[in-house]
Amino acid sequence: MATITIFGTGNMANAIGGVLAEGGSSVQYISEAESGTAAIDGDIVVLAVPYPAVDSIIAARSEALAGKIVVDITNPLDFSTFDSLVVPAGSSAAAEIQAKLPSSKVLKAFNTTFAATLATAKVGDLQTTVQVAGDDADAKAALAAAVEAGGVSVIDAGSLKRAHELEAFGFLQLTLAAAEKISWTGGFGVVR
Amino acid sequence: MATITIFGTGNMANAIGGVLAEGGSSVQYISEAESGTAAIDGDIVVLAVPYPAVDSIIAARSEALAGKIVVDITNPLDFSTFDSLVVPAGSSAAAEIQAKLPSSKVLKAFNTTFAATLATAKVGDLQTTVQVAGDDADAKAALAAAVEAGGVSVIDAGSLKRAHELEAFGFLQLTLAAAEKISWTGGFGVVR
Repeated sequence: MATITIFGTGNMANAIGGVLAEGGSSVQYISEAESGTAAIDGDIVVLAVPYPAVDSIIAARSEALAGKIVVDITNPLDFSTFDSLVVPAGSSAAAEIQAKLPSSKVLKAFNTTFAATLATAKVGDLQTTVQVAGDDADAKAALAAAVEAGGVSVIDAGSLKRAHELEAFGFLQLTLAAAEKISWTGGFGVVR
Repeated sequence: MATITIFGTGNMANAIGGVLAEGGSSVQYISEAESGTAAIDGDIVVLAVPYPAVDSIIAARSEALAGKIVVDITNPLDFSTFDSLVVPAGSSAAAEIQAKLPSSKVLKAFNTTFAATLATAKVGDLQTTVQVAGDDADAKAALAAAVEAGGVSVIDAGSLKRAHELEAFGFLQLTLAAAEKISWTGGFGVVR
């Protein structure tokens, strides 16, 4: 299966890495302390860090990320208000990252699934579904194969432009969980 | 229970009216031909028409809608491209309608549930959940009570500002169904 590098060592990093390792991929984790220097082994690189931490990785590693599949999982909330995103209206964190990494194949994924629903592969009684958006069909297929091998479903949400909608979806879900209207083991599921 | 007036006689109008009637509300339907003139009996008015048809109703009936709860169910897609919404980036159809009806209490609701999932009250094995956003808590509570009496769950998605996210959510869901990645009897469900 695929070779994966995950920037980050938090809940989401571990949940995503767990799914991918379960599917037989080799998974490398790079901690914040090593993020500027560690060799990047993976063909698929998951930026499983908060949105404000993405820029320093991009600034330090853009050459090493050229040609690779780069997966943006962020929900770029304004945490001071919990009432908007910090990216320009109509755009997305993923589009911003693609603009800064023009030689990488940027995908949006994993921002619509809470860590617990990845770890268990269940949202309630539903199989967890990861929504993936991106402009490179081969990149989407490679990520989808690696995730599905780990027992989590994948749906192709369209071009990278749809990252705007995925980020709105993820933001809405976070506001509902923060307001205790849904649980962190629940959220939005996909019924085919 | 509540008195409801529904502008529109299509699939969504009938599905919404069915839920509300099931819950004991009185439901009046106003067809396109009568939309400029018919008396509006309901305290809650559902604009169950395509977004381009909303403006003529507002232009003709803004005085009659003053003081009422006005429910916007639209997904304001650009149907020529199926790749964006026609409302300004960062805004929503609901916000546009509220601006044009300053004396009404505008709610966003029913745009994240396909007609079939309202009619059956099920998304797969999940109870269908209507997401409602709006700035008037009493208006949201009145609509929620009328919907829940009809066997469909309701979740308070926050202020009317969240209509942007609900419209992104509805748009994404429509693109997935149009691409046959989900069915019109499925879609996104809510797990608490």
